[in-house]
Amino acid sequence: MSTAQETDGDDLPWGEVTPDAARRLLIAAVEAFAERGYHATTTRDIAGRAGMSPAALYIHYKTKEELLHRISTMGHAKALDILETAADGPGDAADRLAAAVRDFVVWHAGHHTTARVVQYELDALGAEHRAEVVLLRRRCDAAVRRILSDGVRAGEFEVPDVSGTTLAVLSLCIDVARWFNVAGRWTPDQVGEMYADLVLRMVGAQGGASEPR
Amino acid sequence: MSTAQETDGDDLPWGEVTPDAARRLLIAAVEAFAERGYHATTTRDIAGRAGMSPAALYIHYKTKEELLHRISTMGHAKALDILETAADGPGDAADRLAAAVRDFVVWHAGHHTTARVVQYELDALGAEHRAEVVLLRRRCDAAVRRILSDGVRAGEFEVPDVSGTTLAVLSLCIDVARWFNVAGRWTPDQVGEMYADLVLRMVGAQGGASEPR
Repeated sequence: MSTAQETDGDDLPWGEVTPDAARRLLIAAVEAFAERGYHATTTRDIAGRAGMSPAALYIHYKTKEELLHRISTMGHAKALDILETAADGPGDAADRLAAAVRDFVVWHAGHHTTARVVQYELDALGAEHRAEVVLLRRRCDAAVRRILSDGVRAGEFEVPDVSGTTLAVLSLCIDVARWFNVAGRWTPDQVGEMYADLVLRMVGAQGGASEPR
Repeated sequence: MSTAQETDGDDLPWGEVTPDAARRLLIAAVEAFAERGYHATTTRDIAGRAGMSPAALYIHYKTKEELLHRISTMGHAKALDILETAADGPGDAADRLAAAVRDFVVWHAGHHTTARVVQYELDALGAEHRAEVVLLRRRCDAAVRRILSDGVRAGEFEVPDVSGTTLAVLSLCIDVARWFNVAGRWTPDQVGEMYADLVLRMVGAQGGASEPR
């Protein structure tokens, strides 16, 4: 695990969270949830990791679930931003699909600790918060589906099942958070490039397989 | 969650665990770990779910980690059996790859609760047990890699990076355990068929994309 490396990144969604104490608590919560799981973590653990007292934590977050909700919402908003930016981007459907996969993979590899919490602790959210996050997930899905449908319509892609392929593309990228290892053989960018190529093949894109693009 | 449906299956690795009390405890542990995470689960919780006393649990398992080790080893042994059976099976590389993906996906969808524990709680194993499981995972990897290499050698597949593609194929199948929902639109068999087709496209197999096989 390399949470230190990860949480130093400027592009983390909570780079802008203020005041400083609230941000430190969010980062501590991500680390604790990733290491021990949401249910095994107490607000006392989180406060301790942030070098604060439990009472100081309650000034910023009323419950442990509020911390998870904040992490999950910011993580999903970032994911959605990546996918919608790619879907609205320049180029043909293959260019946009490659950009979506590349950027989504780079995020899941580069922020794998955060991404694990975001992806694996959905069931721990309260019903209302979960419903909110499910809406963000549907919009992520819609962004990828839109690129695939555009590609099919333009004759660029050959996709028998757009819904199923959308799910598979997102799933392939999300699982990077599970296996990615900073000490492993690939950088986030290398995984992003490799996966963009694999996904272009999955959708039967011209030039996605062997021809140079 | 549908642990009841899942744990009734005859093909579960612990169908053969005896005595009955030891098997009931394993099933209870899977349910508890999947619901709350390994670290938030106590042996008392597990015994209670199995309708037994903590003292009765200790007759069969000395520690909570021993339960996880048993679940993880049996789950990985089942995964390895599926992949090696496919790798050693009849037909050309495309047939064997399709069989590997189909059967591996069906297992991850049909036993998603077990598979989540097997795939997401690796870090909770003790060092020795973890090393044992890592060896089983390397053999899973080797089985898929062998099919891909055979296909490349025979001119059936076109795969620029066999290691990376092996990882991606396994990753795509494993993540089914995260998203699969028994109330969803697909059966495990349908996901297996769809994924076999997507993976054949990923490796550039002749006929994997649109032509009927």
